[in-house]
Amino acid sequence: MKTQVAIVGAGPSGLLLGQLLHNAGIDTLIIERQTPDYVLGRIRAGVLEQGMVDLLREAGVAARMDREGLVHEGFEMVFDGRCERIDLKALTGGSTVMVYGQTEVTRDLMEARKASGAPIIYEAANVQLHDLKGDKPWLTFEKQGELVRVDCDFIAGCDGFHGVSRQSIPAEILKNFERVYPFGWLGLLSDTPPVSEELIYAQHPRGFVLCSQRSATRSRYYLQVPLADKVEDWSDERFWSELRNRLPAETAAQLVTGPSLEKSIAPLRSFVVEPMQYGKLFLVGDAAHIVPPTGAKGLNLAASDVSTLYRILVRVYREGRTDLLEKYSPICLRRIWKAERFSWWMTQLLHEFPEQEGFDQRIQQTEREYYLSTLAARQTIAENYVGLPYESVE
Amino acid sequence: MKTQVAIVGAGPSGLLLGQLLHNAGIDTLIIERQTPDYVLGRIRAGVLEQGMVDLLREAGVAARMDREGLVHEGFEMVFDGRCERIDLKALTGGSTVMVYGQTEVTRDLMEARKASGAPIIYEAANVQLHDLKGDKPWLTFEKQGELVRVDCDFIAGCDGFHGVSRQSIPAEILKNFERVYPFGWLGLLSDTPPVSEELIYAQHPRGFVLCSQRSATRSRYYLQVPLADKVEDWSDERFWSELRNRLPAETAAQLVTGPSLEKSIAPLRSFVVEPMQYGKLFLVGDAAHIVPPTGAKGLNLAASDVSTLYRILVRVYREGRTDLLEKYSPICLRRIWKAERFSWWMTQLLHEFPEQEGFDQRIQQTEREYYLSTLAARQTIAENYVGLPYESVE
Repeated sequence: MKTQVAIVGAGPSGLLLGQLLHNAGIDTLIIERQTPDYVLGRIRAGVLEQGMVDLLREAGVAARMDREGLVHEGFEMVFDGRCERIDLKALTGGSTVMVYGQTEVTRDLMEARKASGAPIIYEAANVQLHDLKGDKPWLTFEKQGELVRVDCDFIAGCDGFHGVSRQSIPAEILKNFERVYPFGWLGLLSDTPPVSEELIYAQHPRGFVLCSQRSATRSRYYLQVPLADKVEDWSDERFWSELRNRLPAETAAQLVTGPSLEKSIAPLRSFVVEPMQYGKLFLVGDAAHIVPPTGAKGLNLAASDVSTLYRILVRVYREGRTDLLEKYSPICLRRIWKAERFSWWMTQLLHEFPEQEGFDQRIQQTEREYYLSTLAARQTIAENYVGLPYESVE
Repeated sequence: MKTQVAIVGAGPSGLLLGQLLHNAGIDTLIIERQTPDYVLGRIRAGVLEQGMVDLLREAGVAARMDREGLVHEGFEMVFDGRCERIDLKALTGGSTVMVYGQTEVTRDLMEARKASGAPIIYEAANVQLHDLKGDKPWLTFEKQGELVRVDCDFIAGCDGFHGVSRQSIPAEILKNFERVYPFGWLGLLSDTPPVSEELIYAQHPRGFVLCSQRSATRSRYYLQVPLADKVEDWSDERFWSELRNRLPAETAAQLVTGPSLEKSIAPLRSFVVEPMQYGKLFLVGDAAHIVPPTGAKGLNLAASDVSTLYRILVRVYREGRTDLLEKYSPICLRRIWKAERFSWWMTQLLHEFPEQEGFDQRIQQTEREYYLSTLAARQTIAENYVGLPYESVE
């Protein structure tokens, strides 16, 4: 088989990149290890930055999002017994975020891919990348027992943290940056109305809480839990009771509970690999970086990588600007590190750290007080939350 | 002897509190362990926040400062090869700082005390505080071999980190918060024109540099050095050469060197004690808290404590508002912790930490980039540097 850009991974990054390139008249082939249902079954983020919303519109896949998504103009921060609203719109001069589940984004992108007639190969096993440093890279995979070869100009590695793409780069080329946090997030999804119109990020001595949502009838709640905890330790009843305990009384009184549709524990990790390019291979999204979910940056960062790679490839094909290929990694990393910083900072700010005490604890408390106490400090939270500007491709 | 407010320590805090109380018609006696020359010989800070400038004016001791002090409307930050100006005045809507040495402040306050006729006892040995929890506290000291007793209503502990005041509070009452940094500052004072009109805070892989000043003809430079270094290791020549190395080439080319008037190494420490009141004793300034000098908050924090204690005592004597005495500690601590946070943050931001690597190092670098990259983030630096508002006494 032959294509211009081979995309490894049919999650939202791979599908969005494929859609944008397809619209620009560039051939793509998407290869995915799993089934479509498996991909849709992964419960992930739900808060889209303005930049990603704009990109989905540019890709022509925003109709349902614009109809069903919920525009949020602010969120609540609860800490040290106080409740403060971050008025995103006022603090940023008009920016907002869109609450629309990653699953829905993926579904819309799958539909668009189908409608476009551009190919996706699901259940492609044992993907291997070849000749990445050469003029003509290629990849192979197995499908129904057969070995398939794909020749291409470029490969986009959109296959996540555990995917084959990053692993195909010689280890001595890559520099890894990592922070593992001493706790996890226990998430619960339920068909219940959200406890509050806006998201609530709550610090509590028993641990952080996030009250998130996917729609007006579907809620997503998270509890900070010790890493040793297992999902089996947490009955729905225990989850709801602990959530109530950690929320302000007035908020807890509004909580509508119901059976969980999904419940899982995710560890929190910060991770960045440098560089994000190796010859003709470009790492996109989780394949190159992970953020802790505090601040909702994971999917949004993938979108800004997609935007950068798309704009570069278009200029490569249309204008012969192959010099831009080398700029992919530095352009992406500048924005990635700022989002890594914000995600790390929000995580530090709002979680209980088991070993932290004395001076560090007071500094953490004072950070919360200071950052909510002046206009400029609130603005730094808001401008990061709605998303810093995309870097331009020049 | 008898007085209304006994002040332990004749540094700038004790003298300023004495002056303000004297002007308000409240009797004070200042007791100092050292000689006036010793007190004047201590080389300390040189950057006064607007709040302290206003307080010195209110105390009637600002004439020379207003004549000779240098109003600074900004400072330079050098990091990762970039040089960025923090325009304090523009970023804060009009606030500035005053460059005027602590030694000069102290000298002006000494003159004012002398002119007022209010008493200071120098070389008072073995100061001891008594009956702090009783209605009538008293203190004793030895002067020329004689034991002197002073009866008073209140005692202000303005005697610094190593003074007797904090040590007179039972240890089980106090909670200490402390952070010791793995480096020190080597300072050099010289009668040479400053290398730049404004202060320069410079990050460098060989260590942090501060180019400060006391006047248009007197410079104060600092180098981050390992804790194990001794002043004897640093000839003037070595100091100037290392300073040149760590500054941008264009700046280094402007450097005028000369013999050192003073050279010393100070460890960097963050320290806060809670509470700051014990019965009739009130801790003021360094007696209760220390900041690393990055950000120039030490003397300024002492001034805001003085302001708070002065305003409370005036209302106690004039209006019988003894209920305010209990509020001294919480009022002070709110502002102190914010200044502790800023000093810690500026220190983290600009110093080389020997054990820091990987993720933490990139986060540090990204903090520098982010905080200089948006208006709101720059404003947070500026509003902290010029000084957050004094808390009111209600």
